[in-house]
Amino acid sequence: MPKLCKPSVSVPEYVVTLEDTLQFAERVYHGKPSLPLALRLIKNTGVRKRHIVRPIEEILHHPGLEERNRVYEIESKKRCPEVIEQALANAGVTVRDIDLIVYVSCTGFLMPSLTAWLINNMGFRSATRQIPIAQLGCAAGGAAINRAHDFCMAYPDSNVLIVSCELCSLCYQPDDTDVGSLLSDGLFGDAVAAAVVRGSGGVGIELERNASYLIPNTEEWISFAVRATGFHFQLDRRVPGTMKPLAPVLQKLAADHGWEAGNLDFYIIHAGGPRILNELAKFLDVDSSVFRHSWDTLTEYGNIASAVVLEAARRLFEEGTLTAGATGVIAGFGPGITAEMALGRWSSDATSDMDQIRQGVGITPQAEFRI
Amino acid sequence: MPKLCKPSVSVPEYVVTLEDTLQFAERVYHGKPSLPLALRLIKNTGVRKRHIVRPIEEILHHPGLEERNRVYEIESKKRCPEVIEQALANAGVTVRDIDLIVYVSCTGFLMPSLTAWLINNMGFRSATRQIPIAQLGCAAGGAAINRAHDFCMAYPDSNVLIVSCELCSLCYQPDDTDVGSLLSDGLFGDAVAAAVVRGSGGVGIELERNASYLIPNTEEWISFAVRATGFHFQLDRRVPGTMKPLAPVLQKLAADHGWEAGNLDFYIIHAGGPRILNELAKFLDVDSSVFRHSWDTLTEYGNIASAVVLEAARRLFEEGTLTAGATGVIAGFGPGITAEMALGRWSSDATSDMDQIRQGVGITPQAEFRI
Repeated sequence: MPKLCKPSVSVPEYVVTLEDTLQFAERVYHGKPSLPLALRLIKNTGVRKRHIVRPIEEILHHPGLEERNRVYEIESKKRCPEVIEQALANAGVTVRDIDLIVYVSCTGFLMPSLTAWLINNMGFRSATRQIPIAQLGCAAGGAAINRAHDFCMAYPDSNVLIVSCELCSLCYQPDDTDVGSLLSDGLFGDAVAAAVVRGSGGVGIELERNASYLIPNTEEWISFAVRATGFHFQLDRRVPGTMKPLAPVLQKLAADHGWEAGNLDFYIIHAGGPRILNELAKFLDVDSSVFRHSWDTLTEYGNIASAVVLEAARRLFEEGTLTAGATGVIAGFGPGITAEMALGRWSSDATSDMDQIRQGVGITPQAEFRI
Repeated sequence: MPKLCKPSVSVPEYVVTLEDTLQFAERVYHGKPSLPLALRLIKNTGVRKRHIVRPIEEILHHPGLEERNRVYEIESKKRCPEVIEQALANAGVTVRDIDLIVYVSCTGFLMPSLTAWLINNMGFRSATRQIPIAQLGCAAGGAAINRAHDFCMAYPDSNVLIVSCELCSLCYQPDDTDVGSLLSDGLFGDAVAAAVVRGSGGVGIELERNASYLIPNTEEWISFAVRATGFHFQLDRRVPGTMKPLAPVLQKLAADHGWEAGNLDFYIIHAGGPRILNELAKFLDVDSSVFRHSWDTLTEYGNIASAVVLEAARRLFEEGTLTAGATGVIAGFGPGITAEMALGRWSSDATSDMDQIRQGVGITPQAEFRI
């Protein structure tokens, strides 16, 4: 059964606190009618601090799309390898054991994708498959886990590396002052995350079932406008309201699996913002604290897009309170509006002795085509 | 066994002949030292005509990235549905039978991907999974077939819709005059293609094995520079030379399957340009005419990026000369430099009576999660 092993996450060294953000907003919107709204929206995000790849003064100045994308390339190449090495170590595998890299990132655009550079520079096999996804936004973390799950279902002895590189600060657009932009200016943070899904062996969340759901006719609610200045994030105020139609989808998914969505042992939910989490808790009829790993991610790092579910999962692994067989859900939300959902069960050391032995001695590659 | 059913392809109504291209080049490069080279490169492409989504006068004028991307959105929404309907009909399935849409396109960028609009507007189920890929370029047609194959291996009763929407003319950059740009100005054309991979049933190419291969340290040989004016295609003159290291990879893939790469019944090869096809024929030791469907695609439509393999496959289906069990290869090449390869066998009506009955009466959806 495919297993999501412990993710590795790194946040950059430049820290922006809530107080910093409020001060910057006061400076940027000084004397403008939108100032009170901006301050209120920023305070309501629940974000206490965020981490960004460059000093805030540099981020606030837009140097043009070409330079922004150049910075994305430099920073992603600088920051991904270490996180990937840690994720591989967490899973007890090496670069040579990886059959597929799913690389998700909506905050920069490279062609070829960073996957080519990673394969060349980190020693992955030339036969490593690549799925680069730029267009699922915050839902891409869940999508990456689900596509990794699918791949391991097709090839049970394979291993999939997931990499999420979200440098949201490089999409800051100083000239955008609509409500959605004001909100996102206070919400998003940067992070790089990685995790391995092992087709067999390992310790972590056994992935038992996955599903996607597109909420009908909401495709314009979360979107990018593509302009000469790059990607402009557009957010509709109705987005938190989508948790109402999504809750029954999660409930049905769980029920089809013989589980109750309101009565699981762990929840790894995309922390799109505080209202997303509160609304989903309400409609699933669970205490909002069951989303504590999502809340902590939001508070300490902001919304780190597709990396949220990996960081929340990392916190779950760190907490270390789950026992074998504990049931849970992973759900990412993003443009579409798309939900990518997975049901899984905690698989501890005790439940997979044989796996532990394999992990200890290194696993034997068994994919169907290796060069 | 997953089966690639007959693709559907549509090319736009505006035609640019070789003579047109030569005339435009003479106008654009009038009096410049690069004119003779431009004319020679254009003649050597082997492209007799291409089809583009807007009149050539409009394409030659760059209206800015925002407007270009707006045209991409309009034209993709206008042209994809009909091609998709035909691909579904070819496969004997309906929109409700599709479990995954793999949408590949490197010539425009929408967030959310066109998949969201297709699901909302064409009646696909809300639970349809989406894999939008923008960063595999011309290799994405092969990648889409291979990821569809993988998905059907994981869920044997599922159906995957592949859509390739390549509006290459919208990436024309009038200010780029390097050799690679001169060449691509005469080479690329627009097309929309679609095909269904059925997990069971249907008539077409049974997909038996797939593989990827990244040619080491060639990641800068085919690339996009991302600028305020959009994607700028960059092509290194060493690209045709990659067929030499790729041929043994194809040979090993075939040998691992008990086949001989130089002795197959059909070849669906990415028509990147005439030198790609000639070099590959040389190193596989086959007569270049075995690539006739690729040559015809190149001659009549130009290099239509990820759509080439689908169009060449469509021509193979149209030719109608294969008998049950005929063996063949599909190979797409693109940035990375990545090769996406598949081995398959022709499965005619006679070999799947039961499948034909299912196809006639409509198949029953059996995916694991439907809402």
